[in-house]
Amino acid sequence: MTPALGDIGKRILIGRKLRSAQLGETLLPKKIALPVFASDALSSVAYAPDEIFLTLSVAGLAAYSFSWKIGLLVVFVMLVVVASYRQNVHAYPSGGGDYEVATVNVGPTAGLTVASALMVDYVLTVAVSISSGVQNAKSALPFLAGHETPLAVTLVLILTALNLRGVRESGALFAIPTYIFMASIIGMAIWGFIRLSAGDLPLADSAKFDIAPEAGHEIFGGLAGAFLLARAFSSGCAALTGVEAISNGVPAFRKPKSKNAATTLLLLGTIAVTMLMSILFLASKIKLRYAEDPATQLLQNGQPVGDSYTQKTVIGQIGDSVFSNFSPGFYLVIGATMLILVLAANTAFNGFPVLASILAKDGYLPKQLHTRGDRLAYSNGIILLALCAVGLIIAFNAEVTKLIQLYIVGVFVSFTLSQFGMIRHWTRHLKTETNGAKRAQMMRSRVINAIGLTMTGLVLVIVLLTKFTHGAYIAIIAMAVLFLLMKGIRRHYDTVGREMAVDADDSLMLPARVHSIVLVSKLHKPTLRALAFAKAARPYMLEAVTVDVDRDESEQLQAEWDARDIPVPLKRLASPYREITRPIVQYVRDIRRQSPRDVVMVYIPEYVVGHWWEHILHNQSALRLKGRLLFTPGVMVTSVPYQLISSQAAEERQDREERVAGQVRRGARKSSGDR
Amino acid sequence: MTPALGDIGKRILIGRKLRSAQLGETLLPKKIALPVFASDALSSVAYAPDEIFLTLSVAGLAAYSFSWKIGLLVVFVMLVVVASYRQNVHAYPSGGGDYEVATVNVGPTAGLTVASALMVDYVLTVAVSISSGVQNAKSALPFLAGHETPLAVTLVLILTALNLRGVRESGALFAIPTYIFMASIIGMAIWGFIRLSAGDLPLADSAKFDIAPEAGHEIFGGLAGAFLLARAFSSGCAALTGVEAISNGVPAFRKPKSKNAATTLLLLGTIAVTMLMSILFLASKIKLRYAEDPATQLLQNGQPVGDSYTQKTVIGQIGDSVFSNFSPGFYLVIGATMLILVLAANTAFNGFPVLASILAKDGYLPKQLHTRGDRLAYSNGIILLALCAVGLIIAFNAEVTKLIQLYIVGVFVSFTLSQFGMIRHWTRHLKTETNGAKRAQMMRSRVINAIGLTMTGLVLVIVLLTKFTHGAYIAIIAMAVLFLLMKGIRRHYDTVGREMAVDADDSLMLPARVHSIVLVSKLHKPTLRALAFAKAARPYMLEAVTVDVDRDESEQLQAEWDARDIPVPLKRLASPYREITRPIVQYVRDIRRQSPRDVVMVYIPEYVVGHWWEHILHNQSALRLKGRLLFTPGVMVTSVPYQLISSQAAEERQDREERVAGQVRRGARKSSGDR
Repeated sequence: MTPALGDIGKRILIGRKLRSAQLGETLLPKKIALPVFASDALSSVAYAPDEIFLTLSVAGLAAYSFSWKIGLLVVFVMLVVVASYRQNVHAYPSGGGDYEVATVNVGPTAGLTVASALMVDYVLTVAVSISSGVQNAKSALPFLAGHETPLAVTLVLILTALNLRGVRESGALFAIPTYIFMASIIGMAIWGFIRLSAGDLPLADSAKFDIAPEAGHEIFGGLAGAFLLARAFSSGCAALTGVEAISNGVPAFRKPKSKNAATTLLLLGTIAVTMLMSILFLASKIKLRYAEDPATQLLQNGQPVGDSYTQKTVIGQIGDSVFSNFSPGFYLVIGATMLILVLAANTAFNGFPVLASILAKDGYLPKQLHTRGDRLAYSNGIILLALCAVGLIIAFNAEVTKLIQLYIVGVFVSFTLSQFGMIRHWTRHLKTETNGAKRAQMMRSRVINAIGLTMTGLVLVIVLLTKFTHGAYIAIIAMAVLFLLMKGIRRHYDTVGREMAVDADDSLMLPARVHSIVLVSKLHKPTLRALAFAKAARPYMLEAVTVDVDRDESEQLQAEWDARDIPVPLKRLASPYREITRPIVQYVRDIRRQSPRDVVMVYIPEYVVGHWWEHILHNQSALRLKGRLLFTPGVMVTSVPYQLISSQAAEERQDREERVAGQVRRGARKSSGDR
Repeated sequence: MTPALGDIGKRILIGRKLRSAQLGETLLPKKIALPVFASDALSSVAYAPDEIFLTLSVAGLAAYSFSWKIGLLVVFVMLVVVASYRQNVHAYPSGGGDYEVATVNVGPTAGLTVASALMVDYVLTVAVSISSGVQNAKSALPFLAGHETPLAVTLVLILTALNLRGVRESGALFAIPTYIFMASIIGMAIWGFIRLSAGDLPLADSAKFDIAPEAGHEIFGGLAGAFLLARAFSSGCAALTGVEAISNGVPAFRKPKSKNAATTLLLLGTIAVTMLMSILFLASKIKLRYAEDPATQLLQNGQPVGDSYTQKTVIGQIGDSVFSNFSPGFYLVIGATMLILVLAANTAFNGFPVLASILAKDGYLPKQLHTRGDRLAYSNGIILLALCAVGLIIAFNAEVTKLIQLYIVGVFVSFTLSQFGMIRHWTRHLKTETNGAKRAQMMRSRVINAIGLTMTGLVLVIVLLTKFTHGAYIAIIAMAVLFLLMKGIRRHYDTVGREMAVDADDSLMLPARVHSIVLVSKLHKPTLRALAFAKAARPYMLEAVTVDVDRDESEQLQAEWDARDIPVPLKRLASPYREITRPIVQYVRDIRRQSPRDVVMVYIPEYVVGHWWEHILHNQSALRLKGRLLFTPGVMVTSVPYQLISSQAAEERQDREERVAGQVRRGARKSSGDR
């Protein structure tokens, strides 16, 4: 059986062992692990080539000849990163995420930097993947043009709703679209090569256009040219996002875990590289043109083509050519691309709350994000992620090109710090390791990680140089703000922790007596129950207290009280200015002043209702009063609930939800793929 | 001394007598009462004439000759309404608002209808007054054109902030701008008449324009013409809004209250009528043109004037002509107009929360809107009003002409039902009254109210016919929704009230024993305090309970527990799936099942923090657990607060705020006008 993916995610990133009995059934064979972890990394071939062409088109058609060279550079970096992360996988078979690697080996500040980068990155993964999905959908369904933003927002909201409902796709369910995507892209490439060698591959529709270079780029070359190539390379590096996912997931692999994970990583790298280069190669063969602003940049007979031309994505244009004689193929490619982009966004919906939970456990985020076994904790993370992603999509009109400027910084910050951490890891272990063979192995690993560090660090610098003013600064500001916020939260928890820590001589300081008061506004069943419960606790002193806001009402209350012969004295507090809270707080303080060694217990009758809107109609002044009383030392506040009829349905609903949530966690609930 | 206006408002609409000692100092002489209640009614002359001209311009210049006839009709209705409300004033010296009059004399459904109409109306008062204020400001400061909506929204937000801060203008402070407005408009009129009789009054700038009739109105006359005149009349009736304010305010007048109020009402009517007719007269003398869409409707030499022409308001154009030789006069008029429009909006900010409080007292709105002596209750009303008004302003681009289509329906619904109620009032009293003179007086009042009913009913029908499709339907839908919502809330409160009512044989059913459990997650000071307090209450049984979410943590807790020799047994609940809430709820239910006659008291240690953001960081799982436990019958939940250092500053802040709020209510805090 294949496990619920949310569980895998948790286990992976948390790195904690489950009971072995359970663990056995959730381990993944390589053929399932690959698609589970690959959607994010593979999906980026849907937009990385587009961004390369688009950046090059700034310098006009002349620059297009560099596309495959840039592709080769990206492939080289990809292979270095894959090789480096294979070392992570061997070193952290427990599944060391970049956050853990950086924290353990470099320090908490580095860890927190990685965490900030990753969180910003999750948001961007959603925004970029969904926006690119919409772009691709537009290639097949041109009438979508002009509605990109609402469409992308709708997709994010659907994903959010699915994740909030706790729908957890099984590995198998996840595997199918990923394999379809791989098959369709590679199938398209093979079919393209066959037609090409037969001399039968038609040119792209856009092959007839010329591209107008932008001002300052009329002559391609020199420093400006080099800078442009560097920018195109930076954009192409978007293809690397998601590669690190497997290194987090080692514990989910079948044994031998590290070896299987490393093999899968290599497999993933090979497939991604093959797909990327095939796309770049076919694109140059069909002479496609792809520009940021096609209406003005693309020229036909020297004239801009204008708004009437709808530009298809690179995959869309290649599909058009390759399947010019077989349109179902085109639709399959586009459909699979859309699907994998949505899946890639979904991985962020799984990863973000898990990372937030780890950070919460370490005191960097509010504790309730960590509360495991509680759907609410994850819901907060999901909603936060969705809000940020929707904000980005709206702010950038769902334009992949603009969003991608923000994207890659975070990934490479995390790559670089992780590689730096790995070098330290090996150095530390080398100090204690004496076995010669193992030492040689470690030295080799350290060299690989050092190359990885150099490479990713270099790319990070290039990305910062070429993209900073184009939007990367926004991502950096967001990371800095997150970093400071998390530091502040941690400082607060530390302060509070010190304040509450028990000293050696602290012991139970028993108050002398309990003085109980029951707050009464009317004589109804909730009041009677509160009086009965309070009396059952046999306090040293018990009185009912009401505030004389309305003279007529209090006298009526007093009359009923006497008529029913209630065995608790009723005390009426004067309130000439019709306040409620103040006289009660004052009265409680007076009791405390008279007998400082006593403790006051205030009973508040509360209605328990079944619907959220009923809460608005009840208990508000009780809540406010309670909030106010808790500030006074030596006071306890007891809520005595009175369950209204409508509360029963609500309790059953909650019970049911908890049971279902429990089943999901226990893995008892089979996914549809297993039935 | 003059009283804080918020207090007057409350007293007025609530109609409840304060202590006589206090009441003495707050009674208003006529010369202060007039401006206090007049700003809403008088301010409408700033937009009513504009709407008349604008509606007439649909039929082109030919229709303009009807402007003063329509003015006379409006004046006639105004006088009838004033005469009618003088009867209300005599019949309800306690200050019977339209809601009370309709509820008492016609029934709760009529009362609720009036209430819905009034609430919608308050929102529109804010939106229309502020939008008109911005229009007028534009006459003096043309560069504001194009920024009307943000400007209007900003003004609403400033008013909201002032009202939330509890700034209460004194009557005197209120009186000054109202008198300046009256003086400046009447001064402008007199100066205009003088210049007119001297033959020295220049024509308006817009006099040179022709107006293109809209399609279908090329020939003025017939049914379409009559309908247009009716529409212009409906718009002109905006001048009547706010007349009813005095009838609510009788208790605030010096003795003889009713007589003084009636005199003030007459005075108000006379001034409003004079101002309205002066403006209409001068407007026709200077031949001003005023069109809804000046760019296309106004023609110069047969050509539309286009966007470059900025149209000034009617008061702005008259001011321009009358003060053509004395520009400070123009700026004074515009400034005073702006100011009184903002004051008119402010009256809604005072009236809306008071009405909401009365409705809440009657069970039609959430109870917490009624909690007197609590600034929060009024804050909710103020924020609700502001949100609705801002929504309207944005939806209608701060265009007075569009907003006014929604405005007058509510006023006339309330007028009509109130007059109908008054007729019933007299009829009922006539049944028991035997004194001949008084009977004659009552018969006369009833005739006046009958005329009032006929007139206001007729206007209501005309308004509905001419404005329904232009936007009045939106107001009617809003009223209907409010009506149903309030009925639903009342039904809910009634159901709950019946459910909780004590039966004759209900008595204190004492539970046998109290079984106490203290929830523990860590051993820190809050835990120790909770244990001590729980022990001090000497329950039948006491144990500490922790949930075994993390084995290491629980064992550490157990070790500390044993080391400190804490005299309360620690019970560890198993939670194989890391839930927190479920095992505890289950445990409590088990105790209840074993001894159903016992009651369980659950102690939860809580941190008391000083800032709202600290709440996000603490107590969330305690809150959730508490919410869950309250659903179980026979359970009490006790919060044992532990005051963190940061809570002290917060308590002092709250104390201070309460003291200030109390002083305001007590009238002890002098308004700046009195110092």
